[in-house]
Amino acid sequence: MSAMEKKLLVIDVDAGVDDAVALMMALGAPNVEVLGITCCFGNTSVDNVCKNVLRVLQKCNSLQIPVYKGASSPFLNNPKSDNYFGKDGLGDIPDLDAPELDKLQQEHAVPAMIRIINQLPGQVTLVATAPLTNLALAVKMDPSLPMKIKNLFMMGGNMNSRGNMDACSEFNFAADPEAAYTVLNEYICPTYIATWEFVCMYTLSWEFYEQWTSQNSNKAKFLREINAYTVANLKKHVQKSTTLFWTPGYMPSDCFAIAAAIENDFITKTIVCAVSVELAGFHTRGMMVLDVDNKLQKKNQVSIMMECNVEKFKILLINSLK
Amino acid sequence: MSAMEKKLLVIDVDAGVDDAVALMMALGAPNVEVLGITCCFGNTSVDNVCKNVLRVLQKCNSLQIPVYKGASSPFLNNPKSDNYFGKDGLGDIPDLDAPELDKLQQEHAVPAMIRIINQLPGQVTLVATAPLTNLALAVKMDPSLPMKIKNLFMMGGNMNSRGNMDACSEFNFAADPEAAYTVLNEYICPTYIATWEFVCMYTLSWEFYEQWTSQNSNKAKFLREINAYTVANLKKHVQKSTTLFWTPGYMPSDCFAIAAAIENDFITKTIVCAVSVELAGFHTRGMMVLDVDNKLQKKNQVSIMMECNVEKFKILLINSLK
Amino acid sequence: MSAMEKKLLVIDVDAGVDDAVALMMALGAPNVEVLGITCCFGNTSVDNVCKNVLRVLQKCNSLQIPVYKGASSPFLNNPKSDNYFGKDGLGDIPDLDAPELDKLQQEHAVPAMIRIINQLPGQVTLVATAPLTNLALAVKMDPSLPMKIKNLFMMGGNMNSRGNMDACSEFNFAADPEAAYTVLNEYICPTYIATWEFVCMYTLSWEFYEQWTSQNSNKAKFLREINAYTVANLKKHVQKSTTLFWTPGYMPSDCFAIAAAIENDFITKTIVCAVSVELAGFHTRGMMVLDVDNKLQKKNQVSIMMECNVEKFKILLINSLK
Amino acid sequence: MSAMEKKLLVIDVDAGVDDAVALMMALGAPNVEVLGITCCFGNTSVDNVCKNVLRVLQKCNSLQIPVYKGASSPFLNNPKSDNYFGKDGLGDIPDLDAPELDKLQQEHAVPAMIRIINQLPGQVTLVATAPLTNLALAVKMDPSLPMKIKNLFMMGGNMNSRGNMDACSEFNFAADPEAAYTVLNEYICPTYIATWEFVCMYTLSWEFYEQWTSQNSNKAKFLREINAYTVANLKKHVQKSTTLFWTPGYMPSDCFAIAAAIENDFITKTIVCAVSVELAGFHTRGMMVLDVDNKLQKKNQVSIMMECNVEKFKILLINSLK
Repeated sequence: MSAMEKKLLVIDVDAGVDDAVALMMALGAPNVEVLGITCCFGNTSVDNVCKNVLRVLQKCNSLQIPVYKGASSPFLNNPKSDNYFGKDGLGDIPDLDAPELDKLQQEHAVPAMIRIINQLPGQVTLVATAPLTNLALAVKMDPSLPMKIKNLFMMGGNMNSRGNMDACSEFNFAADPEAAYTVLNEYICPTYIATWEFVCMYTLSWEFYEQWTSQNSNKAKFLREINAYTVANLKKHVQKSTTLFWTPGYMPSDCFAIAAAIENDFITKTIVCAVSVELAGFHTRGMMVLDVDNKLQKKNQVSIMMECNVEKFKILLINSLK
Repeated sequence: MSAMEKKLLVIDVDAGVDDAVALMMALGAPNVEVLGITCCFGNTSVDNVCKNVLRVLQKCNSLQIPVYKGASSPFLNNPKSDNYFGKDGLGDIPDLDAPELDKLQQEHAVPAMIRIINQLPGQVTLVATAPLTNLALAVKMDPSLPMKIKNLFMMGGNMNSRGNMDACSEFNFAADPEAAYTVLNEYICPTYIATWEFVCMYTLSWEFYEQWTSQNSNKAKFLREINAYTVANLKKHVQKSTTLFWTPGYMPSDCFAIAAAIENDFITKTIVCAVSVELAGFHTRGMMVLDVDNKLQKKNQVSIMMECNVEKFKILLINSLK
Repeated sequence: MSAMEKKLLVIDVDAGVDDAVALMMALGAPNVEVLGITCCFGNTSVDNVCKNVLRVLQKCNSLQIPVYKGASSPFLNNPKSDNYFGKDGLGDIPDLDAPELDKLQQEHAVPAMIRIINQLPGQVTLVATAPLTNLALAVKMDPSLPMKIKNLFMMGGNMNSRGNMDACSEFNFAADPEAAYTVLNEYICPTYIATWEFVCMYTLSWEFYEQWTSQNSNKAKFLREINAYTVANLKKHVQKSTTLFWTPGYMPSDCFAIAAAIENDFITKTIVCAVSVELAGFHTRGMMVLDVDNKLQKKNQVSIMMECNVEKFKILLINSLK
Repeated sequence: MSAMEKKLLVIDVDAGVDDAVALMMALGAPNVEVLGITCCFGNTSVDNVCKNVLRVLQKCNSLQIPVYKGASSPFLNNPKSDNYFGKDGLGDIPDLDAPELDKLQQEHAVPAMIRIINQLPGQVTLVATAPLTNLALAVKMDPSLPMKIKNLFMMGGNMNSRGNMDACSEFNFAADPEAAYTVLNEYICPTYIATWEFVCMYTLSWEFYEQWTSQNSNKAKFLREINAYTVANLKKHVQKSTTLFWTPGYMPSDCFAIAAAIENDFITKTIVCAVSVELAGFHTRGMMVLDVDNKLQKKNQVSIMMECNVEKFKILLINSLK
């Protein structure tokens, strides 16, 4: 395989443990070249996100990949985090060897994203696993940007009004609804969305989780450590919940976006329709709206992931920790 | 079975062909006594609804049942109809023998509903297959009313943000979102909801429809006639649609609410949770909100129908036209 | 003056001290006959409002006037009171001689309002000094009602986005925005509105207040007592405030609606335009919207009070306590 | 006066005839140095705005001042123009000598604004007479920017809910409500706002307009030409309108922001309070909200212009065309 045939990725993250796994999945894939990683607030502050990305790159011997600091807050609101992955986003465990922030690029994430994509028009796949603030700012600064993107894969939003943030909203969209709206309306490139309900359909059993993270590797050890806090909370929470619409287990949400970006036939079924984001509701602010009957008469349509190849997913996950 | 053991129903309708079938189902059930029928705008004007109900009662030899005229418009908006069942709500076919409107009761539907329920506290089951304006007005006039209702069954709303009116809203709720909000918040009686997605799961095949309406009876002939307009449209529409999340076929929506009201074990699975209605969204006004994780911390919960006994449903339908 | 020439009033109140003064003004006017008083929640619970109205009628030797209990809550929300006039609405002073609630009519305020107006079509002036819930319910029960009303005078809403409830909303409208919306849209009778900013323009000096309430009469003594709580608070509050757009002093808000209803040339300047109520804003829910440039293209217009005859107002106030 | 004592201005415009006059006022002031002009969509497309600014600079012999192209659309919506100043923003008159767009800087307006202000921290006064998209993007890219700005003067928003765009919204805010919200919340520098109602209070008589534009100068001739379209429309419109709350005449709206920026004692009275922008209302989206009673408990406050020195204003206007 020549370098030209590799999938060229820019990944926008709010790492976050599941972003960390998603990054390891991309870094572990032989057919992928990561051109840059852009950081956004989300699971934790953007400064923590930057540090976390550097820590992941260090574990993967990939500190040569440029990392860019981006938005520290959503367009309108104060940033909110649910500390799902701990206060620092990676389980609040000490890391004495963590790289310094001076390893970050000086360039801001938004002009960096614009520059990289403009240098390789039509060749870059953008993967977004964070609030969409950086992507929204990029298209406002360069309205022609979406035309130069090969594909956009994202984890975010919901398709059946189930929420993990508010009653009807998913975290990445609810964290910056205006940015999500802007991206869904202005990114006219081929777009594939892993929604909250989609990732809930593919919860992995704790048996698989144990097997997966018990590999004898530094990466597996790292993941076990940074995920200990969340796994413990998740098991506790599930015992209380009585109205779950998903099977209890491990949900590597952001990894579905990466897996779809790097494996051509990973997604086996989609719904193709126009989508939008509700901005004004009392209960539904941040909810993704599917226009399955074309009532909004929008031109741009996206592919909502409905089914995927679980076995391939497990192989990707296992390889990512090798 | 003694008269006392009969199920005592007040039915609020916007007939509409599927309300007509629902009424025939109730009138054909041996264990049911219909105490009154209250009329609301909806599928057509409230005057047409009144006339349509009298026509159905005439076909069923039940003109002794009192019929009351209620709300002619929703709380805030102008009434909108999609003429799904034709302009007059019953397929726009001539009916020379239709009863005169002087067969209506003088009393308004709202005080009638309040009076009947107060006369038989704890004994009346309320079935609502229309916009919820009459029910909302009733609770504003008598806040203690819900405590005196045995059960409330309704067809309306949605549970996964699929809509038949706007992208995210179902007709009965979208026709008066404030009324739906009021009913879901203030009717603290046991409440069972047949949503749009629920009725879509149980589309009946056109084969069954043909068999069912080919019975040799006046009622079957009547239904075939008043439904001809809608059936023709439905078959045409389905051929065009490419993103359907439901199986093409006949959807006797309102009949699920009646069937649940009159057959104790018709519903075989429900989700019990608090619900609300979005009133303010740009895309989601009128959408039902399910609070499956109890984020709204409401006391009152409802039962959302998830599965039902299809064979029982078919028997009820067949009996309703005998 | 013959009885037929008298102004025939139905007054809807949430008494409240300023409603009490407004009632005394109406009862003290020789050219007015009060046909009925309908009670609505607002400054305090509807039960307190009923009791307060009976207390006022007792002080005015007018217990023969029928009093009707109406809405106990707004259409959507839980009723909120700011206890501006004390918890009981009349300054929380003991009243051992207060009439019993059995003096209330059995009929609900809404059908009573409908009945009285239908009995004297075109002759009844409706004055509303409370949240507009009763009026809204009445028009939903009888859509032809507004055509039979001679005039509607109300205190409520705002015209320049100044608020006394939230930043942009006035109490009577904010207490039931949907009711206010319904009344402004469906009451097509000639309508005159005393807004919050209007009454703020006509704050009365504390000198006048002292002189007015120092009259040697039972009514003046009563007013001094029930208003002591509010006057004390008002003087305290004003000392703190630094951004007031109104002159400190006494604001007998509801009295402007009554004065306009009973004195033909009391209002000396109005703006005539269509109005509406914002229902969905984050900051502006309940705000009255003036459509001065006819952008909403509504047919129905109202008269917004802009200037009045202060000297006449003072005379009416003085006479009301005689 | 030394160069250091000069007021250093960055001006963000959507020229537009009144922006053109505002620019001429700034360029004509001896105590002002214009560091850069940033362009935003608004009265016309951003490309037209750029061209119009270059034309104005040419007329003022100031083509050495750098001009930067910025946002071509608001954060969420499609850009709308009312063509108030003609399709091209300057009265649709031919201009054979117009400078080419290659005179524009390569740098985008947003990074340019950030760079200039960061190079002279605490010294730059920002004047905004356009939709606030560029300013909002700048603070999202550099959250520390507002701390480095000396003063912000803007024309936009409304203070009494009067609108020139929709019933309750002013053009610059309504053209990008989310940007206005962001600027009002995140620009913590001293901020002075000339609202729509403020500029309406200071309408200039047509007599003054004639006298002012009849000066024997190229600039006066240029203004007469580019303003002919709007003046004609304005005189026509006024004859039709019956509910005007302002005196008919000429309204050089944007000039008030420049005048306030360059003359220390031009503004003679302000209200100091927190403000916000309504984003969600059916009628009030884009309306500025004044929190005169501090109900929102925001820390940041702005100065709303209430009165100004008209004579100084006229002198500034006359000097601007000399």
